Amino acid sequence: MSGIVECVPNISEGRRLAVIDGLARVITDTPGVRLLDRTSDPDHNRSVFTFAGDAEAVERAALALIDATYKVVDMRGHKGEHPRLGAVDVVPFVPLAGSSMDDCVAIAHRVGAAVAARHHVPVFYYAKAAMRPDRVRLPDIRRPEYEGLAAFLETTHVPDAGPRALNPAAGAIVIGARPPLIAFNIELDTTDLGLAQRIAKEIRESSGGLQAVQAKGFMLSDPPRAQVSMNLLDHTVTGLPEVWREVETRAAAAGVRILRGELIGLVPLDAVLAAAGSALLLEAFGRDRVIEARFLE
Amino acid sequence: MSGIVECVPNISEGRRLAVIDGLARVITDTPGVRLLDRTSDPDHNRSVFTFAGDAEAVERAALALIDATYKVVDMRGHKGEHPRLGAVDVVPFVPLAGSSMDDCVAIAHRVGAAVAARHHVPVFYYAKAAMRPDRVRLPDIRRPEYEGLAAFLETTHVPDAGPRALNPAAGAIVIGARPPLIAFNIELDTTDLGLAQRIAKEIRESSGGLQAVQAKGFMLSDPPRAQVSMNLLDHTVTGLPEVWREVETRAAAAGVRILRGELIGLVPLDAVLAAAGSALLLEAFGRDRVIEARFLE
Repeated sequence: MSGIVECVPNISEGRRLAVIDGLARVITDTPGVRLLDRTSDPDHNRSVFTFAGDAEAVERAALALIDATYKVVDMRGHKGEHPRLGAVDVVPFVPLAGSSMDDCVAIAHRVGAAVAARHHVPVFYYAKAAMRPDRVRLPDIRRPEYEGLAAFLETTHVPDAGPRALNPAAGAIVIGARPPLIAFNIELDTTDLGLAQRIAKEIRESSGGLQAVQAKGFMLSDPPRAQVSMNLLDHTVTGLPEVWREVETRAAAAGVRILRGELIGLVPLDAVLAAAGSALLLEAFGRDRVIEARFLE
Repeated sequence: MSGIVECVPNISEGRRLAVIDGLARVITDTPGVRLLDRTSDPDHNRSVFTFAGDAEAVERAALALIDATYKVVDMRGHKGEHPRLGAVDVVPFVPLAGSSMDDCVAIAHRVGAAVAARHHVPVFYYAKAAMRPDRVRLPDIRRPEYEGLAAFLETTHVPDAGPRALNPAAGAIVIGARPPLIAFNIELDTTDLGLAQRIAKEIRESSGGLQAVQAKGFMLSDPPRAQVSMNLLDHTVTGLPEVWREVETRAAAAGVRILRGELIGLVPLDAVLAAAGSALLLEAFGRDRVIEARFLE
């Protein structure tokens, strides 16, 4: 195994279930790849697939999915609430155990070159695969949307690969590499929503808190409890133990204890190992110390 | 992959390095298997190999190692301080991610039957693979040692498989299945050896403490510090979070904090996930929530 890579393609089709099922099958039919999750939203008219496997297999599956989508999704007439540039809108590659961000950047660029050559579609590289600073953030690239993109392809939106002309059926595609995203919630033993909101504000990056952390305070019902809901955008920058400690300290200062944590969806191994290493005060603990992780490389 | 299994064979040869190297190569030459550790002790005249891989590969490697050992180790004339019954003395199979104790019991019994048939060696099954209650504990089986075994093979030591007669060159073999063993130390911020010894006594099974826990108090030098040194014999019965909590509570009651934990050697994934789940107060957290673990099954 050459390391595990995750891929989370966003497709501009969230209504025709038979079509979406067919695209899911393209992924599950690729040997070495597992489809971990899929969601479709009719209002957004958009589907998100999450799959993972060894690096080569994931690259093959991503290309096969793009080929298949261009056959069945046509952007002319596509309506949906979510901003998008193309039939295959965004394709991020995510390094997991045994693979690196550099591996994923290389995959993103190879897939982009192949899509440009095969399908004559403008390609933009984003996040860690970006080739220009103004292409790091997805909203900056996606701002004109499909309907407005044609006008900018010769000026601000010169593609990183592929033609300087919109492919009317496929639109454009954004391909990139980014760290895994971890959705983590902490439930507090209080009904004081204000406390959760204050903690969230103090720890999130946008208001000067922890790097690569998004956070919001929420009220849960049944039973009513305040919750700090977080996204860790790069757990190697700010991980689970750090956000736990920051929330716990602030809650304790208000006389409130933590009731439980909640990881949403699947989590990457390294983030979990960091939590174990921190809890047991282990020095330099990581994958190389876990027997099974030897078989993921 | 059909689940990962570990095997920790003990061989009655710890002096002739070329011979031991040859046996190690039998393991490393088996596809699908990784040799994780090897130690040889000339005084004990004994070597221990630790290897792991998918279940079928580990079974193949274990049989190949036994075949190879019987060609190069002869118990007639073997001297060493460690109790032993045969050239291949003990072969435990250990379930890791994706495999079960039942899988390992089945492997132990298949390997035992094959060794009995191929080599005419008496076979005893121990631990979870034992077929009689007086065969669960290794010392009970090994008591007569190689030199005394012949006299008991018709009475107390009727083998579970193979002939009721000693194989003079190979002796007998003990094969079994057991949980992974975790060696874990906790260093206290004190030079009070008595405290570490008292905590060790209170938490170890032999003096009425936690099930499947062995513990001793030690003094480290440079810098001098008291340490509670533990073996967790079955982390599904008593795991890392439980021993941590018990040691921490007792140390805190004496006004002493924990300085650090130390995991010796490699640890099984499930034990580490339990520590993370406990630290983050997650409900029902395990392998099914970790992306990479999906690829170990």
